[in-house]
Amino acid sequence: VRSYAVVGLGAVGGLYGGRLAAAGFPVHFLVRRDAEAIRAGGLHVRSVDGDRTVADVSVTDDPTAIPPVDVVLVATKTTSWESVAPVLGTLAGPGTVVVMLQNGLGVEERAAAAAPGATVLGGLCFVCARLEAPGRIDHVDYGTVNLAEHRADGAPAGVTDAVAAVAEDLTASGSAVVTNPDLVTARWKKLVWNIPYNGLSVVVGAGTDELMADPDARALVEVLMREVQAGASADGRTIDDAFVEQMLVDTERMTPYATSMRLDFDGGRPLEIDAIYRAPLARARAAGIAMPATEALARQLAFLDRRARA
Amino acid sequence: VRSYAVVGLGAVGGLYGGRLAAAGFPVHFLVRRDAEAIRAGGLHVRSVDGDRTVADVSVTDDPTAIPPVDVVLVATKTTSWESVAPVLGTLAGPGTVVVMLQNGLGVEERAAAAAPGATVLGGLCFVCARLEAPGRIDHVDYGTVNLAEHRADGAPAGVTDAVAAVAEDLTASGSAVVTNPDLVTARWKKLVWNIPYNGLSVVVGAGTDELMADPDARALVEVLMREVQAGASADGRTIDDAFVEQMLVDTERMTPYATSMRLDFDGGRPLEIDAIYRAPLARARAAGIAMPATEALARQLAFLDRRARA
Repeated sequence: VRSYAVVGLGAVGGLYGGRLAAAGFPVHFLVRRDAEAIRAGGLHVRSVDGDRTVADVSVTDDPTAIPPVDVVLVATKTTSWESVAPVLGTLAGPGTVVVMLQNGLGVEERAAAAAPGATVLGGLCFVCARLEAPGRIDHVDYGTVNLAEHRADGAPAGVTDAVAAVAEDLTASGSAVVTNPDLVTARWKKLVWNIPYNGLSVVVGAGTDELMADPDARALVEVLMREVQAGASADGRTIDDAFVEQMLVDTERMTPYATSMRLDFDGGRPLEIDAIYRAPLARARAAGIAMPATEALARQLAFLDRRARA
Repeated sequence: VRSYAVVGLGAVGGLYGGRLAAAGFPVHFLVRRDAEAIRAGGLHVRSVDGDRTVADVSVTDDPTAIPPVDVVLVATKTTSWESVAPVLGTLAGPGTVVVMLQNGLGVEERAAAAAPGATVLGGLCFVCARLEAPGRIDHVDYGTVNLAEHRADGAPAGVTDAVAAVAEDLTASGSAVVTNPDLVTARWKKLVWNIPYNGLSVVVGAGTDELMADPDARALVEVLMREVQAGASADGRTIDDAFVEQMLVDTERMTPYATSMRLDFDGGRPLEIDAIYRAPLARARAAGIAMPATEALARQLAFLDRRARA
């Protein structure tokens, strides 16, 4: 039985880590605050796919109090990376598998730098969930984790033993998993959704349903998706037109969805602009590709984020 | 002494028409509503450049009640064009001078179509003023009118007799006037300001001062200005870099300014997206030039406008 550390007990860490703990895996949560309250009250996952309660939850705010583990799930926001990087150095050593349950591009690169010798995976969460209170997660829709292994040279790693092992555990604990031979393609494909909907949901304050029902908003969503497709292409990854069209159709049929960025904005938290926008923009620019509508959206978000925190 | 009809008694019609009336020109105002209240209460212009009161104001909601005039000032929003076009057919005939005190591109073309045989001028107002109540105008800053004559072939008309005549009257009544030999250049130059600031002031809900103080918002403003510059170039008009840079510097030094589009949005009025965005986008596109950040902004505005009126 593999043991786990989960960095961050928000919606994502609580959902996937909570299921692992409830399934009997040794799971240790690292939080920045509320450790005592969560220990006293337990971890409660209310989920469309079945509720879980972990009464005897192992949770601490001290990374050195966590025993050596096989797998570290990083489930913090990308915006708190500065405080997470040293923690990763403590929790992960050679042989540890680190799974980045984060949004955006480039998150595995920095994890690899922070945990030398570790095997780094990306875990892309397609999930609608939120933290209601410390230790209380509400999972309302979706939930698949797309797993793929990072390679330093950026090439597809294939479905490695580490990917298969983590996929096995997540599946055993009741989470849906897709394994992917190429992390970079998976990340760009997720951006096809995140770049339009996360940003527009904040800038014009609308849900996915409103955006898809309006001809101009929908057209802008598609323009942004096409820019991401071009960015991926510049990065050596092909996303075909059918994928973009399917994403539009799927979102149209989707339950109205409050994006993670909208939840962050409404909650007064910093926005993940670096990971979701600036990193892909920089990657595309380095390859000579402009993403002008994406860049405009990123700058609007940066303005709103800065003003909200001023 | 030339006689005037003024279509629309908002901030612009009230300011320039009110000054003409106060200076002794025969001026007849056409309004859609509040004619009686304005007739009873008079026209009051409070202005940084001196107040004016017209106690005995000629105002009606019936275009056929207005006697033949030499000059028609069109001071309605571009969004109400459908109701203004037939009025123009009534008020203006061959020999009448029609001055379009409106924003955007293409407004003179449609005026020329609505008033066959009339001489059509553009009057670009650089002014910060608002309608406080029927017949009550508050003019807080700026105020120069940039006059130029429209030609059916789009070529520069030079400073024509009609331009000189209207300039003389406006100047005599206390308004600052600049005459311009080329209407199309003047219109594109105004768009260099209007396209970034009008749109962003609505979409991110910020004043010019906030936009200029934020590095991302300011960078986006400049991107949008450069796109307008490229659009003008595609339309055969050169706007040099120094103009764009001066516009940035001037706006930085400006008194914080609520754009006309922001006032419209806050007032629940339709936004001038056709004239300020779609017309220049179409003109540029027809010449093979993309304005992607401008188009993204236009689509965001269209979404917000549609939602606000739903």
